[in-house]
Amino acid sequence: MSSITLTRLTTATKSTSRLCFSPLCKGTINSQGVDLHSSLRRPHSSFRKLSSLPFTKWFPRCVSTRLMSYGLNVTPGRYRKGVFLVTGAAAVAGIVVGVCHFQRAEMASRIVKTEKDEGDILERCKSFMSPPVTDVEVLQQRKDEMSTRMEMLIMETQAAFCKALEQVDGGTFKVDSWQRKEGGGGISCVLQDSKVFEKAGVNVSVVFGSLSEEAAKQMRSRGKVLKAKDGKLPFCAMGVSSVIHPKNPFIPTVHFNYRYFEIEEADGSKQWWFGGGTDLTPMYLNQEDAIHFHSTLKEACDKHHPQYYPDFKKWCDRYFFINHRDERRGIGGIFFDDLDSPSQEDVFAFVKSCARSVVPCYVPIVRKHVNDPFSPEEKAWQQLRRGRYVEFNLVYDRGTKFGLATPGSRIESILMSLPLTARWEYMNKPAKGSKEAELLEILRKPKEWV
Amino acid sequence: MSSITLTRLTTATKSTSRLCFSPLCKGTINSQGVDLHSSLRRPHSSFRKLSSLPFTKWFPRCVSTRLMSYGLNVTPGRYRKGVFLVTGAAAVAGIVVGVCHFQRAEMASRIVKTEKDEGDILERCKSFMSPPVTDVEVLQQRKDEMSTRMEMLIMETQAAFCKALEQVDGGTFKVDSWQRKEGGGGISCVLQDSKVFEKAGVNVSVVFGSLSEEAAKQMRSRGKVLKAKDGKLPFCAMGVSSVIHPKNPFIPTVHFNYRYFEIEEADGSKQWWFGGGTDLTPMYLNQEDAIHFHSTLKEACDKHHPQYYPDFKKWCDRYFFINHRDERRGIGGIFFDDLDSPSQEDVFAFVKSCARSVVPCYVPIVRKHVNDPFSPEEKAWQQLRRGRYVEFNLVYDRGTKFGLATPGSRIESILMSLPLTARWEYMNKPAKGSKEAELLEILRKPKEWV
Repeated sequence: MSSITLTRLTTATKSTSRLCFSPLCKGTINSQGVDLHSSLRRPHSSFRKLSSLPFTKWFPRCVSTRLMSYGLNVTPGRYRKGVFLVTGAAAVAGIVVGVCHFQRAEMASRIVKTEKDEGDILERCKSFMSPPVTDVEVLQQRKDEMSTRMEMLIMETQAAFCKALEQVDGGTFKVDSWQRKEGGGGISCVLQDSKVFEKAGVNVSVVFGSLSEEAAKQMRSRGKVLKAKDGKLPFCAMGVSSVIHPKNPFIPTVHFNYRYFEIEEADGSKQWWFGGGTDLTPMYLNQEDAIHFHSTLKEACDKHHPQYYPDFKKWCDRYFFINHRDERRGIGGIFFDDLDSPSQEDVFAFVKSCARSVVPCYVPIVRKHVNDPFSPEEKAWQQLRRGRYVEFNLVYDRGTKFGLATPGSRIESILMSLPLTARWEYMNKPAKGSKEAELLEILRKPKEWV
Repeated sequence: MSSITLTRLTTATKSTSRLCFSPLCKGTINSQGVDLHSSLRRPHSSFRKLSSLPFTKWFPRCVSTRLMSYGLNVTPGRYRKGVFLVTGAAAVAGIVVGVCHFQRAEMASRIVKTEKDEGDILERCKSFMSPPVTDVEVLQQRKDEMSTRMEMLIMETQAAFCKALEQVDGGTFKVDSWQRKEGGGGISCVLQDSKVFEKAGVNVSVVFGSLSEEAAKQMRSRGKVLKAKDGKLPFCAMGVSSVIHPKNPFIPTVHFNYRYFEIEEADGSKQWWFGGGTDLTPMYLNQEDAIHFHSTLKEACDKHHPQYYPDFKKWCDRYFFINHRDERRGIGGIFFDDLDSPSQEDVFAFVKSCARSVVPCYVPIVRKHVNDPFSPEEKAWQQLRRGRYVEFNLVYDRGTKFGLATPGSRIESILMSLPLTARWEYMNKPAKGSKEAELLEILRKPKEWV
């Protein structure tokens, strides 16, 4: 595993150095807006309490399991390249390389397959909801760069999800392309007050420019030590984010977000990382749905690392916490941020698996409940839970807060996550033993679904 | 004016030293909860740009107008005792005392009258919505202390407002008394989903204890330099706050809040101040209502200082600003904080006038529109504006944010300000020239109503 990490580091460094800070890239991205709200979510600080050796399952047959675990070293809430921290150095590394050769070969073949299935850019663009933010010609010229590959992935994810929802709903998403004058832009797809969905928003943003001092300060306070040149940090951020609020209270709300971030420090060195997650917010608990949702996510995670699902599930439970209510927003899913190891290629492959799991995670649940009958009381309960959703998003969600505080943000795209309607009742307390109380119970004590 | 200020300073110091940090007070307040959200609102930083000589009108016939103006010296966003800052000292002060003697006599007679009309405590308690937070016997023993007089005022304001609204609505407020385990408690009155009102909340809180380091830090960052003993600052805070959301979109939402704060520093010295305000949030602009509302407030302010209304009106426009929407929450009113000059007695008399103006400010507007017909589109517009109200309260309102972040807060009382129902539509833009666009215009460019 050590050797894999080293190999990939080389690749990562090489590809990072060609990313979108070059004059070519700045000049050729054709549209300009900050919706960094997808790109700046950070782990809940209490994630620090998680095990510092989470990857032991990765090498169940390795002798030096514990040392290897540092190959993906979990620092407070962060997954970082930590291979050079391995103590015992050369001798241990030698053993590890030997023992884990088979696994390395497996991974390499998986990645080759992954690269192949990315296919021709022009062909893939045809299926998108709109032309991508960056000119197609530019994407073709830079097709091997991570910024291009990620932009293609987020556009593809947007299109696949919108089309799957349109099929269920019968309606058509409204598609808005927008530009950000400071650099970059986005594509917002919204289906509002339709047959099945009260409000469905799927947003892509690809933005670049200089990170303000305020933003840089926020990042530093979360553990990133970033040295700015003249108070500015050139950055490039992109992501796909979505919140779906259905009409029927038995269809849960879903949220997902996958993002990629690059930043250039004063000395010209680049930092990059991925973040993301998918989580479910039911109004009524359905065990079968919960198991399906979590199993599908686990399957996507397990292809890449056996510890990803358990760790990112915990992270999700901690992040989507409404502190003043002492309850979680929903029944979770996965959430991760600052993921930059073992290599750019590996993390991208993982993010791709997650993004492609969105439709199978959610759409079967929608189909299953689309015709469930419901009472006005059940609808009112849904509205109250929507109120909690608003509370989380406006009070706690770091991405939303950052977006609202950033001049030049496209507010309508950031607040697309808010439901069409919400309700706040004074002192609402569900009766003991009711279906509503059952949900609250699980929001207070998250459980393991798979 | 100088001499008045000096006289009042003596009174203020005397009364402050007997306030609720004494063992008697701590031991005898019978109930215990932080709802400081009424007590910790601070001026918008941009208030700093206001004139530093706002009180010139106070002494139009005085020779040394400019020097006198410092008698109520406006430091950034703050009204502070500044009489000792007057340069030129004795000679100037002598002239001023002579010239302004008539005004001093006027003010003294006004205050005597004010004290008289406070009346017997037991008698006044009979009209309240609930027994006060502090034991009536204790209030009687300490009847001259500011904490008692303010608690009586906020209880009286709550009762007067609730009863006036009940008369219009025909419904009855639900009354909840609650205790805060760290010290103090409150009384929350709520009328929900009634005939005229969708949600009407009027909350009183009287809390005391030690200010956490986090809270102290917040205060310091807003200009109060407070020296804590062992990291703790004993405090006592009380206030009445209310938000009324009517059903009819032609009846505006109103908010008011009047609060009093005392804090003890490491050296045993006490700081005290008052804050408050009343502001209106119409869904449709009605010029006549706006003029009535602002004129009533101006009248209450003008009894105390001709500069109070213009300054506090500006402060209100600045405070209730939804930055990410580039619009104000409503058409304003007055807002002030940290008011601790010219004397405790004077500020209390001013706060009393404001609190007593709430019913005449608002209830006539409710009565006027209670039977106005409205369309579903007008109702939907009201719901969208409610969404903005939620955005302001959850994203910007310092009191709400502070309350939500404070352990032991009574969340239901803090979030009582949120409407029963709210709505967020993607990209809603009222047609040019519509009534909806007319409102947005005034929210973007506040005007002078009187």
